Amino acid sequence: MKSAKAKAHTNIALIKYWGKKDPKLFLPMNSSLSLTLDAFYTETEVILDGNLEMDQFILNDEIQGEAETTKISNFLNLFRQETGILTPAKVTSQNFVPTAAGLASSASAFAALGAAMNEVSGMKADPTTLSTFVRRGSGSATRSVFGGFVEWQMGTCNEDSHAIQIDDASWDIAMVTVAVNTGKKTISSRQGMQLTVDTSPFYASWVETAATDLVDIKQAIRNQDFQQLGEITESNGMKMHGTMLGARPPFTYMEPTTIDVLAAVRQLRQQGFEAYYTMDAGPNVKVLCHLSDSEKIQMKLKEAFPNNPVIISKVGGGIELLS
Amino acid sequence: MKSAKAKAHTNIALIKYWGKKDPKLFLPMNSSLSLTLDAFYTETEVILDGNLEMDQFILNDEIQGEAETTKISNFLNLFRQETGILTPAKVTSQNFVPTAAGLASSASAFAALGAAMNEVSGMKADPTTLSTFVRRGSGSATRSVFGGFVEWQMGTCNEDSHAIQIDDASWDIAMVTVAVNTGKKTISSRQGMQLTVDTSPFYASWVETAATDLVDIKQAIRNQDFQQLGEITESNGMKMHGTMLGARPPFTYMEPTTIDVLAAVRQLRQQGFEAYYTMDAGPNVKVLCHLSDSEKIQMKLKEAFPNNPVIISKVGGGIELLS
Repeated sequence: MKSAKAKAHTNIALIKYWGKKDPKLFLPMNSSLSLTLDAFYTETEVILDGNLEMDQFILNDEIQGEAETTKISNFLNLFRQETGILTPAKVTSQNFVPTAAGLASSASAFAALGAAMNEVSGMKADPTTLSTFVRRGSGSATRSVFGGFVEWQMGTCNEDSHAIQIDDASWDIAMVTVAVNTGKKTISSRQGMQLTVDTSPFYASWVETAATDLVDIKQAIRNQDFQQLGEITESNGMKMHGTMLGARPPFTYMEPTTIDVLAAVRQLRQQGFEAYYTMDAGPNVKVLCHLSDSEKIQMKLKEAFPNNPVIISKVGGGIELLS
Repeated sequence: MKSAKAKAHTNIALIKYWGKKDPKLFLPMNSSLSLTLDAFYTETEVILDGNLEMDQFILNDEIQGEAETTKISNFLNLFRQETGILTPAKVTSQNFVPTAAGLASSASAFAALGAAMNEVSGMKADPTTLSTFVRRGSGSATRSVFGGFVEWQMGTCNEDSHAIQIDDASWDIAMVTVAVNTGKKTISSRQGMQLTVDTSPFYASWVETAATDLVDIKQAIRNQDFQQLGEITESNGMKMHGTMLGARPPFTYMEPTTIDVLAAVRQLRQQGFEAYYTMDAGPNVKVLCHLSDSEKIQMKLKEAFPNNPVIISKVGGGIELLS
């Protein structure tokens, strides 16, 4: 029996990934850029065990059923094709991310699983190549291979659609998450993006302007221009949500409290804080701010939303092997 | 002294007017289509009085200040240019519409004022021509000249940007309004549409697909196909709100309760009611439904939103001279 254990952090896109060019290979319609978060992560151990007949998957101490296990097996098969090693795997995963609430648990999940399998299978691909493997588990996992500001370059094919680190974000940066609803979503991000690609007349403009936003935000990162960084983040995120109102039928991930949180962040800005919101395919709000302001911002948001978890995260690093 | 008094109803656009091609002439970027509502209206009397030095404007029993009165004078000047009659006017207006809450009080206001001035000045233009005059007071007033389903044909110049009645909507149709917030808006529709035209990458697609929506909804009206009518209404309205999330900075008129009302209407549909929502540049929700269902729908919405006025309206007619 051989084993490896890895940890990966989740990431929050500032320039969003929204729509697939190739649903099978998870090639995206546009390049994206994210910030890796320290506070939300997944730890996964992979044991290759010749005594097993088939793969086993244990998530948060619960043995998973066929549907979930098949997803994992399909992902592990990518490594098996590459290495020729077919030994069944026991996968034990602990998620330190509220599941399916727009906090992208699948990003850290597939990045951690990929990193552990990369090690235990002896494939030992470099991180950039590894990012093309984890991409096929979940698109946003691509970016969780690295820490700090990470670009997922859309590329043109399986091999060149990968992540690179843009900046380690070791300046005064944090993200405060206001959890509005951590229950299961009624529309998965996969369904939501497909409906948008298929029916929203805004989609072409989304793709076009996401490209410009990416150029602009990279310039803001180079200049460490926080206001520009925040304004582009806020604009790009809301634009993604605008594409959904253009879909047929129209849909939104916003909930009543979401609307209040967005207003509270605008109010924080009026009070002089550099704080900017973004939202993924869910009702939760993530606030990009200075680490040095984050406790004050957390306090103010807790006061305004006493029933909602408000969590600070520092900038996180890339994948780590734990054993 | 000569006087005339007229009444005009407000209207709710099913295909929205959103953006001006010519802000001075109120030429719109796209044609629109509305339903005239019986329950919301304005009554306005115009007295031409040679003893006055300047125009006077009394709204809801309050004498209005210079800013409001100047707006009225500018509008009356259009008729003065046409007729040569310069006698100052005393304008007395009663608004049976909550002001500035997305219920388009300016539509019924300028339609009623235009109709009274058309009469008292002796201009006596036909309704189609009159609609080009009232357009220059407020774009949506163009459609309030007629009853039932009304199209505002965008046209190419001052003379041909006018309204026509498409259908008197004397089938089983009503609109139920849920008032979410009837206070003054933070972003006027004029500001909102201008910001959208200037900065939203979705705006071109809005204009393009509003044209298709208009063709499709007119077909649905001809066929008295209520489901098609409702689905196009809902899609077009949300699309307009999607353009705002694309603006820079992004903005929305949605409030927390708005989100809940939209969900409640979707639930009504699941219960078998043909009910579809639309929203103007404000947080209130208008529900297109069958008149025969409207009391049940009103009851259910009142139960769900006990703090919000829920008002049924039948289909309204065009402008009327009252004396």
